[in-house]
Amino acid sequence: MRVLGIDPGLRNMGWGIIEMAGSRLSHVGNGIAHSKDGDLASRLLSLHEQLACIIREFRPEAAAIEQTFVNKDGAGTLKLGQARGIALLVAAQAGLKIGEYAPNAVKKTVVGVGHADKGQVAHMVRHQLPGVKLAGPDAADALAIAICHAYHLQSSGRLAAAMRGVA
Amino acid sequence: MRVLGIDPGLRNMGWGIIEMAGSRLSHVGNGIAHSKDGDLASRLLSLHEQLACIIREFRPEAAAIEQTFVNKDGAGTLKLGQARGIALLVAAQAGLKIGEYAPNAVKKTVVGVGHADKGQVAHMVRHQLPGVKLAGPDAADALAIAICHAYHLQSSGRLAAAMRGVA
Repeated sequence: MRVLGIDPGLRNMGWGIIEMAGSRLSHVGNGIAHSKDGDLASRLLSLHEQLACIIREFRPEAAAIEQTFVNKDGAGTLKLGQARGIALLVAAQAGLKIGEYAPNAVKKTVVGVGHADKGQVAHMVRHQLPGVKLAGPDAADALAIAICHAYHLQSSGRLAAAMRGVA
Repeated sequence: MRVLGIDPGLRNMGWGIIEMAGSRLSHVGNGIAHSKDGDLASRLLSLHEQLACIIREFRPEAAAIEQTFVNKDGAGTLKLGQARGIALLVAAQAGLKIGEYAPNAVKKTVVGVGHADKGQVAHMVRHQLPGVKLAGPDAADALAIAICHAYHLQSSGRLAAAMRGVA
């Protein structure tokens, strides 16, 4: 199963796709959708087109997105919300179910501790996806989100199998 | 020229369309796109489809959206941002230029004072668009945004004409 992870942002939207075969994970692709110039609507349109293109090319079967950290910077939260809305929309338009994970839950799953820094996350992503070339920290975070979702899908699958065994 | 106004919201997204012929305004349509049930991505998808349908049906040539009031409720700001991102995207996908106006600027233009309440806004919208039936307060606000944008397009058009006269 192919899993798409998204680290939402208006200027830099990280994305990463992994393949899960049983308990084995491998890297498919990663990158950063940029939207630097133009008015807000044009930037959102550009992000939508870039993400839709990635989904058409790699055909993921599941998606996960980072839960946004809501802070006191209302203007920043609003910008992030607008970009995040586009990411959720693109996945929903492709018929993908979307998992949402808090940043600490992603770090806990991938690194083992909830307060890992970006360097540790990138290190563990490289360890779990041998040979991967990371497009940048946002792309590493997106792959970490995809890995986190893959683990959760695996364990819920095992749980469902165990439940069927009991019944 | 047909102008679409949008009052963004996740649960209730008000929309209103007016026709501007010279300085004369008339009502074309108004309503509220609802998204109450389901997960966030499905709700955003539903809003996107409803707004895209409205644009296909009424074919506006310009659009305007309310600038979101950023308050201390980060979770509320995030929700609103996600819905607002969808509204901006739909307009951009239709190739519409989008004006943005603060709530007080809309009220000042339509009612004459920046701190008018919703009742006053609805009253002045009815006055300026005789015979209009309002789908609700959010639809009235959306029509007020469209009226505000129409006035600004008119005055900038007059300014451009005056500048051409001078040159």
